[in-house]
Amino acid sequence: MLSPTEIVDRMMSNDTMSQWLGIKVNSVSPGSVSCIMEVRSEMVNGFQIAHGGITYSLGDSALAFSVNSHGIHAVSVETSVSHLKPVKIGDTLTTQTRELSLSRKIGVYQVDIFNQEKVLVATFKGTVYRTGQEWS
Amino acid sequence: MLSPTEIVDRMMSNDTMSQWLGIKVNSVSPGSVSCIMEVRSEMVNGFQIAHGGITYSLGDSALAFSVNSHGIHAVSVETSVSHLKPVKIGDTLTTQTRELSLSRKIGVYQVDIFNQEKVLVATFKGTVYRTGQEWS
Amino acid sequence: MLSPTEIVDRMMSNDTMSQWLGIKVNSVSPGSVSCIMEVRSEMVNGFQIAHGGITYSLGDSALAFSVNSHGIHAVSVETSVSHLKPVKIGDTLTTQTRELSLSRKIGVYQVDIFNQEKVLVATFKGTVYRTGQEWS
Amino acid sequence: MLSPTEIVDRMMSNDTMSQWLGIKVNSVSPGSVSCIMEVRSEMVNGFQIAHGGITYSLGDSALAFSVNSHGIHAVSVETSVSHLKPVKIGDTLTTQTRELSLSRKIGVYQVDIFNQEKVLVATFKGTVYRTGQEWS
Repeated sequence: MLSPTEIVDRMMSNDTMSQWLGIKVNSVSPGSVSCIMEVRSEMVNGFQIAHGGITYSLGDSALAFSVNSHGIHAVSVETSVSHLKPVKIGDTLTTQTRELSLSRKIGVYQVDIFNQEKVLVATFKGTVYRTGQEWS
Repeated sequence: MLSPTEIVDRMMSNDTMSQWLGIKVNSVSPGSVSCIMEVRSEMVNGFQIAHGGITYSLGDSALAFSVNSHGIHAVSVETSVSHLKPVKIGDTLTTQTRELSLSRKIGVYQVDIFNQEKVLVATFKGTVYRTGQEWS
Repeated sequence: MLSPTEIVDRMMSNDTMSQWLGIKVNSVSPGSVSCIMEVRSEMVNGFQIAHGGITYSLGDSALAFSVNSHGIHAVSVETSVSHLKPVKIGDTLTTQTRELSLSRKIGVYQVDIFNQEKVLVATFKGTVYRTGQEWS
Repeated sequence: MLSPTEIVDRMMSNDTMSQWLGIKVNSVSPGSVSCIMEVRSEMVNGFQIAHGGITYSLGDSALAFSVNSHGIHAVSVETSVSHLKPVKIGDTLTTQTRELSLSRKIGVYQVDIFNQEKVLVATFKGTVYRTGQEWS
């Protein structure tokens, strides 16, 4: 079985979307991987603020890294994001993951997303299905 | 006041995220804008299937175009997406919007996302806040 | 294995909450059970409209009956409800279930809730985990 | 304008659903009202565990009391609950509210629900619309 860091490295090397977003992994512990990214000008919506898909995608990547770091393949099934404050070009976003529950087949995670001023700009929640297949 | 088509064109011209996704507008009617996009190789996650952020972002753009086409600025507050079937590189995704409710300040929308075989691959739901400001 | 109708009858006979709500089963087919109930005066919130828990509970019961009617035990994991229109004392609510996806372990369902004037008053969405245990 | 405690008392006196649930108010501060209730035998589903509507309703009541305690009428629009652990007859549930954001018209709240052993059994999230009308 791979270590949590090896799993996250392996995932990131295939994850072209996280690469496009410029997501970097800050820290890895089983069930909680922290990420960081900067909002660029090609990431805005029609109001010139960050597209909702930016905080969503950051949260979904942090979720995927966090649950897979336990060593078992898992994919997200049901996810939501609350947009709490506008996110702007140039903002640096960091994630903080809370494992709400984890059983053999199901996990529920919350990913809070903060800007560079420690303001909570979005909160993401995800329910994942664990296939049972080991990372190897 | 701008027409629904003018509003969507104006939004799309600023919306660099939707441009990166390659989203095209299929049809515009007030409260229901249909979009189409193709999944490219830079849009996958660590399992080499479409990142959850792809269907989310498509749904969120379709939501934004749909509610703003009524002529009043609106932004999404609370959103969720259910990932029902894997989405692959090369898939063509289209959206179908259902306006669940619309009042002066709040709207609730569902955006179903289908692949080229008419299979429902994801369903998105969004609650928006309408600021009251007119598109002009 | 029990039939869909036998499963729903068995569930209802234990389900003291659905009994308190006065939920009746309208029709049963595998994956889609329709329910009906009347809103009583002991079901309101501080604004004297139906408490949010009423449409939620009706949706959650319809979900449980619908997915369990396939013959395998299933429990809800992640659920949401959008409150679209006020529900009043005396209103009669009916449910319409849409099975968005069903795999061996996971199901996703939408339950639309209508009042006696066929107005959509709430929409419920639920993700369930199927334990694998048969109803017998 | 009424005080937070007066508002919650006023709401509770009309809220027949919270009364049926046996909800008691533990503490009141603006934006955060803590509640407590005991799960009774008439609150279970077909599996003889607490119906999903129980934790949902407790969360929705705590949300309503919390946001209305600011002095302005508010109603819930979009809500979700994650069922993390089974809740049983005889369990005592308490709520802890986190105000994620509050603007003039919109609020987003998270309500964590714990059992008597301090285990997180459910987490509720709600988006509310504030009408602007004062409690008086």
